[in-house]
Amino acid sequence: MTALLPHGLSDAAFNQALTALRAAVGSQWVLNADADRQAYLDPYALGDGLDHDCAAIVAPASVEEVQAVVRIANQFKVPLWPVGRGKNLGYGAASPAEKGDVILDLSRMNRILDVDVKQANSLLEPGVGYFDLFRHLQEKKLPLWMSVPGNSWGSVVGNALDRGIGYTPYGDHCEQICGMEVVLPDGSLVRTGMGAMDGSATWQNYKYGYGPSWDQMFMQSNLGIVTKAGVWLQPEPEMTAKVELALPNFDDAGWALDILCDLRRRDVIQHNIVFGSPVRAASVMSQRADWYQGKGALPDSVSEAMMKKLKLGWWNAKINLFGHEGTVNAQVELIRKLFEPRLGKPLEFELWKQGDPPEKSAQGVPSTLGLQCVNWYGGRGGHLSFAPVLPQDGKLALEYARKIKAYYEQVGQDYYASFTIGRRHINNVSLILYSRDDPEGVARADKLYRHLLGEAASQGFAEYRGHISYMDAVAATFDYGGGALRRLNDTVKTALDPNNIIAPGRNGIGSRAAAPHSEAQP
Amino acid sequence: MTALLPHGLSDAAFNQALTALRAAVGSQWVLNADADRQAYLDPYALGDGLDHDCAAIVAPASVEEVQAVVRIANQFKVPLWPVGRGKNLGYGAASPAEKGDVILDLSRMNRILDVDVKQANSLLEPGVGYFDLFRHLQEKKLPLWMSVPGNSWGSVVGNALDRGIGYTPYGDHCEQICGMEVVLPDGSLVRTGMGAMDGSATWQNYKYGYGPSWDQMFMQSNLGIVTKAGVWLQPEPEMTAKVELALPNFDDAGWALDILCDLRRRDVIQHNIVFGSPVRAASVMSQRADWYQGKGALPDSVSEAMMKKLKLGWWNAKINLFGHEGTVNAQVELIRKLFEPRLGKPLEFELWKQGDPPEKSAQGVPSTLGLQCVNWYGGRGGHLSFAPVLPQDGKLALEYARKIKAYYEQVGQDYYASFTIGRRHINNVSLILYSRDDPEGVARADKLYRHLLGEAASQGFAEYRGHISYMDAVAATFDYGGGALRRLNDTVKTALDPNNIIAPGRNGIGSRAAAPHSEAQP
Repeated sequence: MTALLPHGLSDAAFNQALTALRAAVGSQWVLNADADRQAYLDPYALGDGLDHDCAAIVAPASVEEVQAVVRIANQFKVPLWPVGRGKNLGYGAASPAEKGDVILDLSRMNRILDVDVKQANSLLEPGVGYFDLFRHLQEKKLPLWMSVPGNSWGSVVGNALDRGIGYTPYGDHCEQICGMEVVLPDGSLVRTGMGAMDGSATWQNYKYGYGPSWDQMFMQSNLGIVTKAGVWLQPEPEMTAKVELALPNFDDAGWALDILCDLRRRDVIQHNIVFGSPVRAASVMSQRADWYQGKGALPDSVSEAMMKKLKLGWWNAKINLFGHEGTVNAQVELIRKLFEPRLGKPLEFELWKQGDPPEKSAQGVPSTLGLQCVNWYGGRGGHLSFAPVLPQDGKLALEYARKIKAYYEQVGQDYYASFTIGRRHINNVSLILYSRDDPEGVARADKLYRHLLGEAASQGFAEYRGHISYMDAVAATFDYGGGALRRLNDTVKTALDPNNIIAPGRNGIGSRAAAPHSEAQP
Repeated sequence: MTALLPHGLSDAAFNQALTALRAAVGSQWVLNADADRQAYLDPYALGDGLDHDCAAIVAPASVEEVQAVVRIANQFKVPLWPVGRGKNLGYGAASPAEKGDVILDLSRMNRILDVDVKQANSLLEPGVGYFDLFRHLQEKKLPLWMSVPGNSWGSVVGNALDRGIGYTPYGDHCEQICGMEVVLPDGSLVRTGMGAMDGSATWQNYKYGYGPSWDQMFMQSNLGIVTKAGVWLQPEPEMTAKVELALPNFDDAGWALDILCDLRRRDVIQHNIVFGSPVRAASVMSQRADWYQGKGALPDSVSEAMMKKLKLGWWNAKINLFGHEGTVNAQVELIRKLFEPRLGKPLEFELWKQGDPPEKSAQGVPSTLGLQCVNWYGGRGGHLSFAPVLPQDGKLALEYARKIKAYYEQVGQDYYASFTIGRRHINNVSLILYSRDDPEGVARADKLYRHLLGEAASQGFAEYRGHISYMDAVAATFDYGGGALRRLNDTVKTALDPNNIIAPGRNGIGSRAAAPHSEAQP
C-alpha cells in the first residue's frame, strides 16, 4: 500500500491535520500505518478495494471528541467517512465512497446509555453492536426483544441509519429510531425530536418533536454524525409461533406473494417476510462445488436436486407470529387455512410460550451465519446486493423475477433471489455472489449490477440502498425533474456542510465523481 | 377592516404583486375585499382575530399555478401562508402566524388522483377533505377505510402535515404519508421518496427512497408547499369490535393508563386511545348552563351529577379492535380479562362483521360533532388545545393531571382533559374552552396556556403542535444547546427560502417576531 492523501490536500496540510487529530483524541486513536488501513479495507471488495482506500482512521471516544475532530476536519478540509462499527457488509463495509477520506470510526462509543423496560425503549451510542445489546438484555434478564438483520456484526444504530431491516415486528429498523443526538458538519451539537428541549422527559417516547422532524434526514446521508439515538424495543410477547413455508414451484411466487402481502398489509404478519430461492438456503450450509462443478449458471436440474436433498421449495419463507396466546393461535389457524390446501400438507408450527426454552421463540437473536453465503464460489468471497423496490403485486414480481433469472443465466451467474415483503412494497433482493480471486466473476458481478440497475429503472423500480461503488449510479436513476431530489439534497448539503467534510459522495450527495452533481452545485 | 400590507411591502409594490398574481391564477382567485378577508379569519380566535389578519388570499388551481405564485411572491417579497382547506381549528384555522401574509388557499386542488385497492394507498391533492375521500370510497364501494380526526372538516393531507391524529390503526396520520410532490420556496418542483425517479412505479409503496428522506421535513414547517401526497389506507378488516370503558374515579387514570399503554405498545390495541374527562363528553351534547350557573370552575359535585346522568366515568375511553374474526375475538377476551374484574361488571362490546350495517363498525367516519364543544360557555365559542407529550407512566400522568386540574380550578376554568395514548407516549390534551364574547374568559385562556407551557417545560414535557398565537412561545421551550434545533431549522430555512417567503413564523421558524430567531439568523 502507498500512503494516500485526502482529496485536494497537500502532504504538509494532511500531516498538520493528523497532528491536530492526535492532539484531540490521543495519538493511539489516529491510525495511518499500512496495516491499519489494510484492516479497514472492505473484505468483500470487488477487486482489491484500494479504489476505496482511506488515508487514515480516527476513533474518538466521546461526543466532545467527535466535535473536535469535525472542527479540525473543517479547518484542514479533510473529508471524514463516519462508520458505527464499519460492518456495512455487501455495501462497502467501512470503506469510504471517495478514495482518501479519513474514516471516522465510532466503535469506541459503545455505551448502552439507557434501557427503559416499562417504556420499551433504549438510548444507544453508535458503536453498540447487536451482540452487545443482546448480551445486555440477556444478562439483566430484561423482557425486551430486539430485531436483528440477517448479518448482525454491525451497529444497531448504524444499521438503522442505513435503513437495514430485520424479521420481527420491529424489523423496519429506521422506524424504531426515536430521537437523535447529532454532531452537525460545523461541529455543533443538536438533539432532535423531543430531545430538543433541555431536560426532556420524552426524548425516546415521541419521534417527531415540534416543527420539521430531522431524523430521516440523517439516514443514508452525510448531513451529520449521529452520536446517540433512541431505539424502540419489543416488549417480550406471551407467545410466538414459527413456521417455514416451502413452495415447490418457481411460479408459486405469484399467488403466494399476493397472499403474504395481504397478510402483511393487514398486520396479521407483523414483520418483513423473506421469501428466498434455493441457493439462498444452500449457500449458508454448503458450497457450489458440493452441487455442481460446471461452468455457467447452475442448471435448474441442480437446483431441484438441492431442493430435494435440503427439503426446500423453490421459494422458502419463514413466518413468525407474536402476541398473546389467543391471538397467536387465531393467526396460526388463519395461516393454516390459507396455505395448507394449496400446499396439500399440514404446516409445522413451532410454538413458544413465556418460560419455554428461548431458542424455540421467534425473537431476534444476533447471528453472522448468513455471511457463510460468500463462500459459495470458493476463494475469498464477497456479495453485492441488488434490491429494487417493487409494488405488492405477485404477478408483476414473478414476471420480474423470471426476467432477472434469465439474465443471470445469460451471463453465467447462479441465480440467488429473495423477495422481502414490507408494509406496502416488495424488495426483490438479487444477491450477486463472487470470489474476489476470480476476476471473471468480479467483472460479471459489476456487469450484472449495472445491467439490473438500468433494467429496473426502465420499469420504474428504484434501489432502496446502495454499495459505495454504485452510489452515484443509483443516485442518477432518481431523475424526476432533471434530478430535482438531488438538487434539494445538494442545497441542504451545501448549507450544512459548505466544506463538504462529511462523507462526500454518500448516496451520491456531495459527490466529486458524479458529473450531474457538479452541475447542480450552487 | 382596514387594508393590510404584507411585512415590509409598500402599497405600490403590493398592488404590483396582486396584479401579477391575478395574471397567474385569474383575477377571481385573488381576493382582498374586506368580506373575503373576514371570511378567512379564525372563527375561534382569541379576541377579534385581526392580529392574524391576512392581506389577501390567492387560490391556485394547479401545481403550475402554485409555482407561478411562489415565483411572484419571491419577486415582490410577499410572504405566503399555505393552507389545505384552512380548517386547522383550534390552532388558528386558515390564519397566518404573521399578520399581513397572503393566504395561499389550496382547496381548489382537490383531486383524488389515485386510489389503489390492491396496494391500499392513494394519491391526493391537498384540497381533498375527509368527507370527499369518504364519499369517494363509499360511492365506488372500495374496501378501504380511512382514519379521521375528531373534527373532520379539514384536508386529509393538511391534517397529516400538521401531525394530526385519528383513532384507528392508521391514526398516526403523518405516518400514512408515502411520497410527496412539493413546490420548493424557489418555485421548483421536487418529488420525494421513490417519486424522485421519473416514471416511478412505487411512489406510494415505499416511504424513504434513497438517501435522506424529506417527508417529515415538510411537516409542521414552512420549507415547501405540498401539492400531492401519497396516503396509505386501511384494508377493510373481516371484523371489528368497539367498547367504551367508563372509569369511575379520577385516580383510576393511574392504573388504567398503565394497562392501556401496555396494550398499545404490544399492538393489541392498534390505535391511539382517547381517555377523556366528563366535560369532554358533556360538551358535545350540552352546554355548561345546563349543569351549572355559578362562577369559577365547575365543582366536582357537578361533574359527578353529569357522570351519573350521562352514564359516564371520570375517564371514558373508546377501544376499537380490527382484524380477522379469531384475532378480534381473542382480543375481546383479553380486554374483558383485564378490565372486568377491576370494573366489577361486564363490558359491552359492539361487534361488526363484513356485511353488517356499516354504522356498527369501528371504521373512521368523518364527523364535525366534536366541534359542538365550543358552545360550552355560550356565545361565540372557541377552543385552544394544550397538549404536552408525557412518558407512558400512569402514576406520573395522574399526578400531572391532578396538578393541571388544580390550576384550572384556581383560575376558574372548567377542567377538560383527555389522555391520548400513542405507541410510546401519552399526550395529555387539556382543552381550554372559551366564549369569544367574554373578554375575561379569553384572557383566562391565554393565561392558562402560558402557565401550562412553562409548567410543562419545567418537567421536561413539550408540545407536539402549536396554535399560531403561541408558535414562538412553544418553539422557545425547545432550548437544548441554546436552541440548537432552532438554529438547524433556520439554517435549512435560509438555504431553501432566502426571502422567507413561505409561512414566516410557522412553528417559530423564520419568525420575525421572536427575538431568539433574529439572533440566530446567519
